[in-house]
Amino acid sequence: MGLMDHCYEAVESSDFKNGMSRLGAAVNIATTRTDDGPFGFTASAVCSVSDAPATLLLCINRSSSCFPAFQRARFFCINTLMPGHQSLSNLFGGKTPMADRFGSGEWGEGLSGVPVLKDALVSFECEFSHAVDEGTHRVIFGRVIDIRCHQRDAALLYCQRRYVTCENDG
Amino acid sequence: MGLMDHCYEAVESSDFKNGMSRLGAAVNIATTRTDDGPFGFTASAVCSVSDAPATLLLCINRSSSCFPAFQRARFFCINTLMPGHQSLSNLFGGKTPMADRFGSGEWGEGLSGVPVLKDALVSFECEFSHAVDEGTHRVIFGRVIDIRCHQRDAALLYCQRRYVTCENDG
Repeated sequence: MGLMDHCYEAVESSDFKNGMSRLGAAVNIATTRTDDGPFGFTASAVCSVSDAPATLLLCINRSSSCFPAFQRARFFCINTLMPGHQSLSNLFGGKTPMADRFGSGEWGEGLSGVPVLKDALVSFECEFSHAVDEGTHRVIFGRVIDIRCHQRDAALLYCQRRYVTCENDG
Repeated sequence: MGLMDHCYEAVESSDFKNGMSRLGAAVNIATTRTDDGPFGFTASAVCSVSDAPATLLLCINRSSSCFPAFQRARFFCINTLMPGHQSLSNLFGGKTPMADRFGSGEWGEGLSGVPVLKDALVSFECEFSHAVDEGTHRVIFGRVIDIRCHQRDAALLYCQRRYVTCENDG
């Protein structure tokens, strides 16, 4: 274990991004609502944390245009996308002004009033639990207060910088 | 925003698990080494956090057999699996004694001595940064100190309780 006494530096950002492009993930639109209206962005850094109590986490860049809204949000929603949602994913992942984003897709409201994508594969409505900052990002933990599953069972994934679909119908 | 004053309870564990089965993810084997030998378990709750410094997170159940090892670990490795690794994923995701798990797969050592799967799609060797407990789990943050990418570019994903492969070769 002598090697463990060495000091190591973090890898370069570009190497990290290339490596991470190989870590496939579901594609989600994270949403919230403030007095200024609805906010949302495409997020792949979402994962299950604990089932008792039901908890997930969402990573958000603290320099993103959505951060001020999510920073103050008591509620938010993770809307997991289906095949056919590629353009919606691109729209919420780009520089489009917030008001224009919600012009695409069919949006309803969750228990708390947050935007819920009506035809999401699954939506996890969350109440903010707490958060920790790590590097450039904030990790937000949410208690899952409502789940809506679509009748159709087909997932949109993102891996190796492209979309992949996973059909489980029939 | 009047609705936001209500109180909400977390959803039931079974509903959470069903909903989360729709959140597709890469399949990884998280490994570490202690004086008692190598430890590893199949983990899908891994995600990118920050690229400056390069940081990822891993969620681990605090009641799992691997927890004592990861709790003390200064280094660990996230080995992201490829098509063909399904049985390895099942082996490290089950109740197999730790010593028997590493009898399958080709294992080398990282800079710090942690087990690195030689034919992983990508391996992220990490130095423990810090951790937070959330419900039943611990979220471990790791500074990525080395990345190894396989020449082959094909991912093994898990979604809707089955394996999905994503080929990007040729």
